[in-house]
Amino acid sequence: MATDKVQDLINQNVAYAKADYTPPPLNFSLLRTLPRGAMTVIISCFDPRAIPEQYFGLKPGQQIPPVIRVAGGRAKDTLKSLLIAEYAFGLGDVVIVHHTDCGMTHMTDAGVKQFFKEQCPHKAAELDAMHFDEIVDGDLKKSVEADVEFLKGSGYFSKELRVTGMIFDLDTGRVQRIN
Amino acid sequence: MATDKVQDLINQNVAYAKADYTPPPLNFSLLRTLPRGAMTVIISCFDPRAIPEQYFGLKPGQQIPPVIRVAGGRAKDTLKSLLIAEYAFGLGDVVIVHHTDCGMTHMTDAGVKQFFKEQCPHKAAELDAMHFDEIVDGDLKKSVEADVEFLKGSGYFSKELRVTGMIFDLDTGRVQRIN
Repeated sequence: MATDKVQDLINQNVAYAKADYTPPPLNFSLLRTLPRGAMTVIISCFDPRAIPEQYFGLKPGQQIPPVIRVAGGRAKDTLKSLLIAEYAFGLGDVVIVHHTDCGMTHMTDAGVKQFFKEQCPHKAAELDAMHFDEIVDGDLKKSVEADVEFLKGSGYFSKELRVTGMIFDLDTGRVQRIN
Repeated sequence: MATDKVQDLINQNVAYAKADYTPPPLNFSLLRTLPRGAMTVIISCFDPRAIPEQYFGLKPGQQIPPVIRVAGGRAKDTLKSLLIAEYAFGLGDVVIVHHTDCGMTHMTDAGVKQFFKEQCPHKAAELDAMHFDEIVDGDLKKSVEADVEFLKGSGYFSKELRVTGMIFDLDTGRVQRIN
């Protein structure tokens, strides 16, 4: 049974499909015939205060890059999605964006694990095998640099892959390039 | 060295920040004082043909849910982000959306692994420990149902958590609720 919030989403979708929708020009098989190694992928946080299509001014109708969004925009948690993009299309650029006041600057791996071990003790071993990739001391420059290095050093991508790190500032709406 | 595509993103961000930007009203610490268990999180694919803020008609300025985006919108790959949201805010609803013509319907776990084992043989063991969560036979109803069941049965969330599965149809722009 859908709650009101979910029904609201569905109702808004009905209005969107009626008013604004144009089907995409290319299907997946046709997209795969485009030259390889030219795809840009953006990695960002799932925080709704930092939506890449908004802060990069990407409008419906223009060519919009794929956007992977996970807690903190931490690159390790995006690896499988990036491998799928590399396999299907070949990556040219990866842009990693972390943002100010990110939840991952306000919590620790240990704190998250302790919470769930209390809530569901039978999951302790599974939790210990995870790593919640906190941003230590709120140092976004360091976390972005670490994630750029992680992708460059992952061993999966060609040396031609460009990985650019940025910080999005919630106060100003501006991104700052780190490398 | 940023490429033109990355510089274009930065230039568009400058224009966005100048023209349209309003800082969010609440910081993370204030958001955490809101009643727990009321957060809706959307899970969707990173495909730019299926952007949740667009197909759910979510406009800047209105309350927009966090959106986790990974290949296929497969729930297993979103678990850590969901745990972080549960820890920080408490989840009320999770909405899982898979979409027609998804890349994950056009590839297999075995195919992705074979590709990378040829490209980088030294990663074979690491690849074998991954699972690329293909959507078998393009059966989106089955993949959505499997992901709803995965979250409901994960053991991390309360029985009150509502998990709703949907399919987004690229041809029509419409979502269809599965459960």
